[in-house]
Amino acid sequence: MTATPPRVLDRGRELVQPAMRAAIERVDDALLRRIAGYHLGWLDVDGAPIDVGGGKAIRPTLAVLSAEAGGGTAGDGVPAAVAVELVHNFSLLHDDIMDRDVERRHRPTGWVVYGEGQAILAGNAMLTAAVQVLVDSGPGGQRALPCLLAAVQQLIRGQSEDLVLEGRPGVGLHEVLHMEAGKTAALLACASSIGAVAAGAGPDVVAALAAFGHELGMAFQLIDDILGITGDAAVTGKSASSDVRAGKRSAPIVAALDAGTDAAARLARVFTDAPLVAEDDVALAAKLIEEAGGLAWAADEADRCLARALVHLDALDAPPAAVAELVELARYVVERDL
Amino acid sequence: MTATPPRVLDRGRELVQPAMRAAIERVDDALLRRIAGYHLGWLDVDGAPIDVGGGKAIRPTLAVLSAEAGGGTAGDGVPAAVAVELVHNFSLLHDDIMDRDVERRHRPTGWVVYGEGQAILAGNAMLTAAVQVLVDSGPGGQRALPCLLAAVQQLIRGQSEDLVLEGRPGVGLHEVLHMEAGKTAALLACASSIGAVAAGAGPDVVAALAAFGHELGMAFQLIDDILGITGDAAVTGKSASSDVRAGKRSAPIVAALDAGTDAAARLARVFTDAPLVAEDDVALAAKLIEEAGGLAWAADEADRCLARALVHLDALDAPPAAVAELVELARYVVERDL
Repeated sequence: MTATPPRVLDRGRELVQPAMRAAIERVDDALLRRIAGYHLGWLDVDGAPIDVGGGKAIRPTLAVLSAEAGGGTAGDGVPAAVAVELVHNFSLLHDDIMDRDVERRHRPTGWVVYGEGQAILAGNAMLTAAVQVLVDSGPGGQRALPCLLAAVQQLIRGQSEDLVLEGRPGVGLHEVLHMEAGKTAALLACASSIGAVAAGAGPDVVAALAAFGHELGMAFQLIDDILGITGDAAVTGKSASSDVRAGKRSAPIVAALDAGTDAAARLARVFTDAPLVAEDDVALAAKLIEEAGGLAWAADEADRCLARALVHLDALDAPPAAVAELVELARYVVERDL
Repeated sequence: MTATPPRVLDRGRELVQPAMRAAIERVDDALLRRIAGYHLGWLDVDGAPIDVGGGKAIRPTLAVLSAEAGGGTAGDGVPAAVAVELVHNFSLLHDDIMDRDVERRHRPTGWVVYGEGQAILAGNAMLTAAVQVLVDSGPGGQRALPCLLAAVQQLIRGQSEDLVLEGRPGVGLHEVLHMEAGKTAALLACASSIGAVAAGAGPDVVAALAAFGHELGMAFQLIDDILGITGDAAVTGKSASSDVRAGKRSAPIVAALDAGTDAAARLARVFTDAPLVAEDDVALAAKLIEEAGGLAWAADEADRCLARALVHLDALDAPPAAVAELVELARYVVERDL
């Protein structure tokens, strides 16, 4: 079933959109602004305005709610929300180059359209603009800078580990989860707490929100990993079973390979020839991942992460309306499209 | 003749080196720290300590002198010096990927050794560390952030224009100079003024130092362009006549092509087949660039930039010792290796 996106995502998107557009104006080069706008879903290839629908705005909405949970206004969280969304999109633009992904949100990726060099530069410009937005937003933004920058270092570390693990046999589940903690959970932990930092919340509230965001991020990534195996191309915007096809060592796939069952051994043999070309092999591998228990483990683990995330919110001394919206958003993130 | 490097460069290097090493510790990933250390000339390919001699430390020395010229101590300029040097090296690491350069300082470039993806990530981590160094260095560093970030946007803009111009016929000299203002002069303008900003100097002093750095940067790039035509491989660490070989539209080459003389027309014909493969063609093109006056124009223009740079220092109300060292460093930069 596909869950209905909570209303708070619309509120987040509407609050952040104008500030996102202003932030892209920081980029000094017209071509790089165009690449950023194309990547963000605002522009077509030639730079004409369109609306293909950007992302779900989960991270900026978390940042705005985090400001409210920290005792501030939604507006207190807007510069931080913009910074987090720019960092997220900088990393997507760069990761698509490294992973040789050719499609995102049903459109050719930035490097396919504009070339690798310009796509690298557009990513760099977005990362720089993210920092500029916080620097220019007064004391709240300046307080939030260390939180953003630490998350960026973690994000970079996670992507580096992802590239290393990709080419290596015998990858352990703990290695994959450590990689995913950097690649996905660090920025969600940042998004969930940076608004509170900007709003001047105390360290206990900030730490609880960051812990909530970390668990939510781990759940989020596990769901993404499941969709990379079972996902419908029309929904995910990627080719069906893309991770299976690539023989990627995502968490459910490594869990399946580690199961010690007959299905696990057969899966290892099919993956010897990865990337898989024949559709029969892709279907067989997907079936074996399920048989070996990889999908069930990942779904259960995502539920456990969500439960832990919600415990951190329970303990929080924060305005109940913001907490209720965080809970709703967290449930949506883990239940989407499954 | 090869000018003797001024002593102030040793002082700059010694002041900045320990802080540079501490800054690289900010990078969360061991492999990315190794790539940064390799690129900076501290480590061999396997991560063992060596000293192949990093850069000349021109930018960090300018930042330290800028703090002194702004009425502060050399130490006031150290975080800014580290940030500028990290930004410079982030851009070198990325530019080598985009320009497909395989050698720097007589060693294989980072992407050749570690792969494109990891080299992109190591560059991103260095850019992020540059910002972290300023954020963590107190009020002076925080004052200096906008100066650094604006220079980073200019640097990115310049590299983007460089990639665009490379593939385009009929490039004008003003376009090349605008590109070089972003690609080189912006960071030298930043280096020459950011220490003063950190030290709390007034806007007039900061503006004069930035204007000095901009002119010095333009001169610096013109000298680099000349070395790309006439340069000895043993000195430059690149292949001899590398820009000629590539048919690159550097300022002296565009000035030669624009000369309207017989040599200019013959040069355009030789360049039709760029990149040049035959050594005879490379030698002929280099001779025609000289005949058409490209080298003389660039050398004269570099002298004019240096003269303008020094005028900005003349007008400066600043400690004479720092100004004298800035003058000496500027002369060295423009006279090096010619």
